[in-house]
Amino acid sequence: MTIRRVAIIGLGLLGGSIGLAVKARGLSIVTTGWDRDPDVRARAAIRGLVAEVYETAEAAVAEADLVILCVPVGAMGEAAAAIAPGLKPDAIISDVGSSKAAVAAALAAALPGACIIPAHPVAGTEQSGPDAGFATLFAGRWCIVTPPEGCDPAPLEALSDFWTALGSKVEVMDAAHHDLVLAVTSHIPHLIAYTIVGTASDLEDVTQSEVIKYSAGGFRDFTRIAASDPVMWRDVFLTNKGAVLEMLGRFTEDLTAMQRAIRSSDGEALFDLFTRTRAIRRQVIEQGQDDERPDFGREHGA
Amino acid sequence: MTIRRVAIIGLGLLGGSIGLAVKARGLSIVTTGWDRDPDVRARAAIRGLVAEVYETAEAAVAEADLVILCVPVGAMGEAAAAIAPGLKPDAIISDVGSSKAAVAAALAAALPGACIIPAHPVAGTEQSGPDAGFATLFAGRWCIVTPPEGCDPAPLEALSDFWTALGSKVEVMDAAHHDLVLAVTSHIPHLIAYTIVGTASDLEDVTQSEVIKYSAGGFRDFTRIAASDPVMWRDVFLTNKGAVLEMLGRFTEDLTAMQRAIRSSDGEALFDLFTRTRAIRRQVIEQGQDDERPDFGREHGA
Repeated sequence: MTIRRVAIIGLGLLGGSIGLAVKARGLSIVTTGWDRDPDVRARAAIRGLVAEVYETAEAAVAEADLVILCVPVGAMGEAAAAIAPGLKPDAIISDVGSSKAAVAAALAAALPGACIIPAHPVAGTEQSGPDAGFATLFAGRWCIVTPPEGCDPAPLEALSDFWTALGSKVEVMDAAHHDLVLAVTSHIPHLIAYTIVGTASDLEDVTQSEVIKYSAGGFRDFTRIAASDPVMWRDVFLTNKGAVLEMLGRFTEDLTAMQRAIRSSDGEALFDLFTRTRAIRRQVIEQGQDDERPDFGREHGA
Repeated sequence: MTIRRVAIIGLGLLGGSIGLAVKARGLSIVTTGWDRDPDVRARAAIRGLVAEVYETAEAAVAEADLVILCVPVGAMGEAAAAIAPGLKPDAIISDVGSSKAAVAAALAAALPGACIIPAHPVAGTEQSGPDAGFATLFAGRWCIVTPPEGCDPAPLEALSDFWTALGSKVEVMDAAHHDLVLAVTSHIPHLIAYTIVGTASDLEDVTQSEVIKYSAGGFRDFTRIAASDPVMWRDVFLTNKGAVLEMLGRFTEDLTAMQRAIRSSDGEALFDLFTRTRAIRRQVIEQGQDDERPDFGREHGA
């Protein structure tokens, strides 16, 4: 099974980066695309995110061997309904959403009988929209593929090969486990970042101007994450409620323990945690999941 | 009042960066230095962090117009006692610690009658030690100076001019307000980051290997902060307990509200917060407090 034509539905950061990566890597694949927003379609055509931008979802997916839905996870059902009339019977339907069990259910409901293999490339930036994508976004990152039970091996292999060709490393996992893992490595970090930025901007005894001026003490890192797309993230929390609440519970238990350690001046408990966490950072860098330069390689000396 | 000779006590990230910045900017200032650890002194001499490395704190501060204590805030009293016998009577004693009221008290107790002006350059990376410093660390960053009541204007101006000459912008503030502001812009972000990295590494249903592999979803940013120096951060929490617990209380209230919004599928509440927080990021960038490139300018495509 060979993928010769890929339709990208939704031409924002993820969709655009897929199209640009196909082009930059010189793959023998024709990319087509559509976005609900006509302005995004126009920008996509100007930037050449895909080879052919269509005016309807149905036209974009005609003849496609693989259709990738790159829309917020709450909009998957609607996007699937829009492409349904144009699909080839053997087309693989996939996506890039950050929660997987809910997406799998939405796609299965909208496209009964179709070959649906949800996926999640664990990559992104805080930017969104048709100008945000770039060809190297997936290089060295993991793409988690969550095939339904009884999925045919041929399309699964074809989809895995596609992501490998974009520079990703592929891991197959069941959707429920994906949702638990990503709750801790992505969803809770985002929730915490959004929350602390909100807390900081609502204080009366510290001005917003002070919060911004002295943000280099750590806070600015959180503002980057809290600048992520609001619709995308709203949908993530609404569709991965169970795992997020479970992991949030564990985090708040641990935070309460730290609070108690501070209150009782238990320097040993603080030191123990602060020492343990360094080892994780070393492994993140050793495994190529972050820039090893200090401060992410940020420029110093404006 | 002119500063011609600066003694740096503690030759890690901050102390080393001060020395390198003085040299790189060609200031007419002689730097001297000392560190408790002989290996650090040896590295400092090899890297040329200061012009003259001494074998004792007392010798390092002799003739110095300005002494800057660059040690963990819990070690300030001890460092002050070590320099006491060598100080010129009119020397300015300052520091770079992240909490200020406790440091001011410790220095005043150890050096009665001395001209003490605590300060805090809001700059740093996750690295520490004599190899971590670099000359541009303070460029464009704020340095908060917290003079005690009744401080002479001449040494205050001299200290402010020194930081300005290193490329910093200087703000004068009282120590208690500093501690409140930094609790929210630096201490709570660090506490949260340390905690979530600890939470993630203690799970049974998600392996540590999974946490590391899929860290690009947001978690890896927290691992950077959680790789910061454990002794320094232990001391920060022990010496700024009141403000940290106050701000932590506000954060957990807000987090509980988000938890409730997720549980009740209140998409509007989530969307509202996630939209508000974007404005803060824009201001952080506009005011030159972070790299405007996506993802902090991280390298993509390993």
